[in-house]
Amino acid sequence: MIDITLLGCGGSLPTPNRSLTSLLLSHNGKNILIDCGEGTQVSMKIAHTGFKNIDIICLTHVHADHVAGLPGLLLTIGNSGRVDPLLLVAPTKSKDILSGLLKLCMALPFEVRFLECNEDRVTRFHHNGIDIQALPVEHSIPTVCYSLNISRKKKFNVDKALENNIPKIYWSVLQSGKKVEHEDTTYTPDMVLGNDRKGLKICYCTDTRPIPELNNFIFDSDLFICEGMYGDDSEVSKAIQNKHMLFSEAAYLAKNSNVKELWLTHFSPSLSEPIIYLDKTQEIFKNTIIGEDRLSTSLKFE
Amino acid sequence: MIDITLLGCGGSLPTPNRSLTSLLLSHNGKNILIDCGEGTQVSMKIAHTGFKNIDIICLTHVHADHVAGLPGLLLTIGNSGRVDPLLLVAPTKSKDILSGLLKLCMALPFEVRFLECNEDRVTRFHHNGIDIQALPVEHSIPTVCYSLNISRKKKFNVDKALENNIPKIYWSVLQSGKKVEHEDTTYTPDMVLGNDRKGLKICYCTDTRPIPELNNFIFDSDLFICEGMYGDDSEVSKAIQNKHMLFSEAAYLAKNSNVKELWLTHFSPSLSEPIIYLDKTQEIFKNTIIGEDRLSTSLKFE
Repeated sequence: MIDITLLGCGGSLPTPNRSLTSLLLSHNGKNILIDCGEGTQVSMKIAHTGFKNIDIICLTHVHADHVAGLPGLLLTIGNSGRVDPLLLVAPTKSKDILSGLLKLCMALPFEVRFLECNEDRVTRFHHNGIDIQALPVEHSIPTVCYSLNISRKKKFNVDKALENNIPKIYWSVLQSGKKVEHEDTTYTPDMVLGNDRKGLKICYCTDTRPIPELNNFIFDSDLFICEGMYGDDSEVSKAIQNKHMLFSEAAYLAKNSNVKELWLTHFSPSLSEPIIYLDKTQEIFKNTIIGEDRLSTSLKFE
Repeated sequence: MIDITLLGCGGSLPTPNRSLTSLLLSHNGKNILIDCGEGTQVSMKIAHTGFKNIDIICLTHVHADHVAGLPGLLLTIGNSGRVDPLLLVAPTKSKDILSGLLKLCMALPFEVRFLECNEDRVTRFHHNGIDIQALPVEHSIPTVCYSLNISRKKKFNVDKALENNIPKIYWSVLQSGKKVEHEDTTYTPDMVLGNDRKGLKICYCTDTRPIPELNNFIFDSDLFICEGMYGDDSEVSKAIQNKHMLFSEAAYLAKNSNVKELWLTHFSPSLSEPIIYLDKTQEIFKNTIIGEDRLSTSLKFE
């Protein structure tokens, strides 16, 4: 299971009722934060998410509306008693700006490790059992979109274990994924485990144009959280110029990539009522939800 | 007249109902901001103060709770259409951290000029007719407290003008503060103007211990806005260690310096109900007010 909270749904500038875009994912008691605009820590306090267990912060890019909350949040995490290292993931060429921001965080009680994403291809790494991938996308500065894949453990298959004559004393070790060597025989986990089972996939995509590479990257997502900077299709030239997306472009991405549910986020400050564009967007992709601060869900394995 | 709005009254960490300490002063259509913690721009939006007319931002020091809102605010000021330079005033040794923060503000449409305060003595400058002074105080990093003095124009004195035989055609020029030379005679403004008239003085003081120099610095203030990190006198050792003040210490400063009104601000996040210490504080200094977000007043000349 994974709990997902959209901490903020605003783009560009915060408004009194809309924090800047940020997403918190909780899995097995560990938290992953994606983006950290000004006010993220306040939204976390309202949502009672806690601070100490944030192990990793993934940044889509280093525009202020996505990172200005970072110094304050890191200091608050420090105040929460964290001493374990924290991993900061960011696109290529972000280090200079992040180092500048982090000068404000004097003497943190934990180490901030830095992972810079590849400039021209997907970056892939594993963290707390989650397969995280970052795809370079198209914005005015280096930007990545993230996919998080949580694999589901294979089921223990008694018939298979018996068929393979596995001694019962090794069953639990093999079920946990370790192999066993006894005298001249090697027992491997696949001898007692069933077929692959579908995991969970969550994608987070802002700020970018809807580039073709996104279709594969977000394919089959259980939840696709995507920017909807502009609701009205007549603003397409503004979307192209500012390298953002229309609601309809996000909806076509969702439709063409077989995702289960789409949350729109990162609304332009001028878009005070995104809800008025929902019907039209749902004509393209039915399972569209207009994001709002602290919209949350829990995804479970099927 | 000067309008004063306490944009936030929180210290250290923002809470859902308390923005970080920041103060906005408006005089003759121009705004002065003191400190800019995370969320300051949101409080400004709620207060409908506008952004374009902020000519000067004075920072007490570069701890995150006083400056982390700066990149977002500067970008929002840029979005508001400002092109005139903005003056950023900060204590000595702040430039490195501020330069780091400002890397986030790519391509602002206005120039940010920087004024570094003296390390060991009062810094004094004039801005839009206001005499601004910064006193180095005692905190864990270089910190200053600010006083703003708005002088009141002298009144035109008809009897004095007649007594000094000033030709009527020069009265308005002399009243405006300019001298007039005609043939061999020089006419000066003091020949037509009355005595000095009391102006307005506002002081803003956080974060510091109540050092003796503050008594003179804040003397005769119409409004003294001062940190009250801790309400309970039993926390004095914590106040000394963290270089902050108790409510009672702020109240004694106000009492001993003949100020008219004291606003307490910069409350510790653990101080959820500062109001419970009000009665005891008012026993020391009667005109004490517990600050809250967007507490505001207008000060007028007597």
